[in-house]
Amino acid sequence: MTVPSPSPLAYVPFVSVQNMMRLVHSIGIEAFIQELAGYIEEDFRRWSEFDKTPRVASHSRDGVIELMPTADAENYGFKYVNGHPKNMREGYQTVTAFGVLSSVANGYPILLSEMTVLTALRTAATSALMATYLAPEGSRVMAMIGNGAQCEFQALAFRALLGINTLRLYDLDPEATGKARRNLEGQGFEVVTCASGEEAVEGAQIITTCTADKQYATILTDNMVGSGVHINAIGGDCPGKTELHRDILLRSDIFVEYPEQTRIEGEIQQLDPDHPVTELWRVLRGEAQGRVDTRQVTLFDSVGFAIEDFSALRYVHARVRGTPYAEPLDMLADPDDPRDLFGMLERARG
Amino acid sequence: MTVPSPSPLAYVPFVSVQNMMRLVHSIGIEAFIQELAGYIEEDFRRWSEFDKTPRVASHSRDGVIELMPTADAENYGFKYVNGHPKNMREGYQTVTAFGVLSSVANGYPILLSEMTVLTALRTAATSALMATYLAPEGSRVMAMIGNGAQCEFQALAFRALLGINTLRLYDLDPEATGKARRNLEGQGFEVVTCASGEEAVEGAQIITTCTADKQYATILTDNMVGSGVHINAIGGDCPGKTELHRDILLRSDIFVEYPEQTRIEGEIQQLDPDHPVTELWRVLRGEAQGRVDTRQVTLFDSVGFAIEDFSALRYVHARVRGTPYAEPLDMLADPDDPRDLFGMLERARG
Repeated sequence: MTVPSPSPLAYVPFVSVQNMMRLVHSIGIEAFIQELAGYIEEDFRRWSEFDKTPRVASHSRDGVIELMPTADAENYGFKYVNGHPKNMREGYQTVTAFGVLSSVANGYPILLSEMTVLTALRTAATSALMATYLAPEGSRVMAMIGNGAQCEFQALAFRALLGINTLRLYDLDPEATGKARRNLEGQGFEVVTCASGEEAVEGAQIITTCTADKQYATILTDNMVGSGVHINAIGGDCPGKTELHRDILLRSDIFVEYPEQTRIEGEIQQLDPDHPVTELWRVLRGEAQGRVDTRQVTLFDSVGFAIEDFSALRYVHARVRGTPYAEPLDMLADPDDPRDLFGMLERARG
Repeated sequence: MTVPSPSPLAYVPFVSVQNMMRLVHSIGIEAFIQELAGYIEEDFRRWSEFDKTPRVASHSRDGVIELMPTADAENYGFKYVNGHPKNMREGYQTVTAFGVLSSVANGYPILLSEMTVLTALRTAATSALMATYLAPEGSRVMAMIGNGAQCEFQALAFRALLGINTLRLYDLDPEATGKARRNLEGQGFEVVTCASGEEAVEGAQIITTCTADKQYATILTDNMVGSGVHINAIGGDCPGKTELHRDILLRSDIFVEYPEQTRIEGEIQQLDPDHPVTELWRVLRGEAQGRVDTRQVTLFDSVGFAIEDFSALRYVHARVRGTPYAEPLDMLADPDDPRDLFGMLERARG
């Protein structure tokens, strides 16, 4: 007797890395980021509808593995993500991720997706979305300090949402800058390779910091940051990993995703636990102001929050429907009679 | 230009439901349970090596979705599992599950597996393993109250590890009992269908309770339980869901997986938070005694713990190697240069 085929209920649509890349290209990278930013904005605006938990982290000597769950009344989502700074030296990704979106009503997964590529896109979309509220009017030049895996995605997001067309690149490792330069010139940016962080920030209205070492670093010192600048700080995202000098924080207006998490993981781990910060969702709902002054220094202390992943999964779930980019995966047991799991197993006997 | 193939690093072995069933049959159900019980015993014996977290639950009106992570120095594992009692009435499983095993060293997943079938097997393996320490010498007769999806797996585990050959079945729903009877007679058990819980427990040395309704129920009242019996209580496994009358608990010696979790979810949620219980791992290490007296009432208040899932994933990972029962899944982005995620995306342009 052959194994009977599973029923349609047993299948979960799976978006592989290859298919995610095909989906992105079928939509266009910048259009994808722009649409995704719309989903993120929509979800942050209904902040109170979400079941929010700080991520669940398992730390080890070389890194961390995290689960980031959240849910609204209709969907539940979580992301699995690792962070292992030493991986790069061994030919592995520092960060890999995948995620699941489920139906709250019956608990069944409705999407399994790669999220390494998707996380890069959602991080960039969130940064650029916030910058539309925080960056100086008419920003065209962005400094990018740290030219690793996240760099090009940030650049494209800032072009798509703000019109950034000039990039000033600096990385401790010239090879990283060379890689970013080639990729970004290919995308039509004007690219300036800089010999130092100081040089990179010259004339930039936006400064994006995105380095990967797990340590207290000082990518930006106080004297490097003039007035009227927006800082998009991506790399300080776990305990013991920061990029900015404390003095910059003290003269910035600081915007965060979820204070409970950012105070542990973000740049503001350097500050008093009651240092005032503004939550993104309040800005997006119009309950708090973004930039109010041309001389103001604004800082988005980005650590990444579960709702962004939820929005990304929700967006992919909506966009992948009707395309060939999701494969059905036989992931859920679905016996004819739900009480008869054993009977299903017996009937599968070869 | 066609999309380049992902490198071997990008692939995660996936065990589908169909392949899990094939793997189980290739080993034999009872042999599978016996070997799996060995893994569980081994892991519980090194209890202190594990990073233990209570499960992360997202509750909704109709059910719960949970993530159950744990890790030792080498591997990280988690299970996604839902519990939706009303699902059965709509043709869905009450519980579905899948899980992931990863390398702690680099954070990469090394196995994605269905766990609906696997959870039924690990729950049964854990119950029977504990019963080898707690059930009366020479037990041959088991009462089973609640004849749903878990019933047959329990029966096979108790035969494999203890030699149980006679089953006394009772369920509020005679169709469930009919289903279990057919399946279990097919497996060579002597099966007695009973008209009540009272009748089912007559002459049984072991009583397994395994009902599914989410409510405080009283499947067993005090007068039904004589001395010298082992109670294997499976169904009381979330807040507000219990099966045993409190008086039974008060005259039982109670054994639990992880007190922090069981006091919230198990039968002992009915007792004072400092009511004495014995942890399984202490019994398995010989640091605490199991059954010490022929007249003693022992109770395994089973709620399911992350280490059991970890053991199950570890077992499947070891056993599936070299078989055709794992498919490679392109789940992880793996650019040639780990910093060049964007270049990988660009090269995938169709």
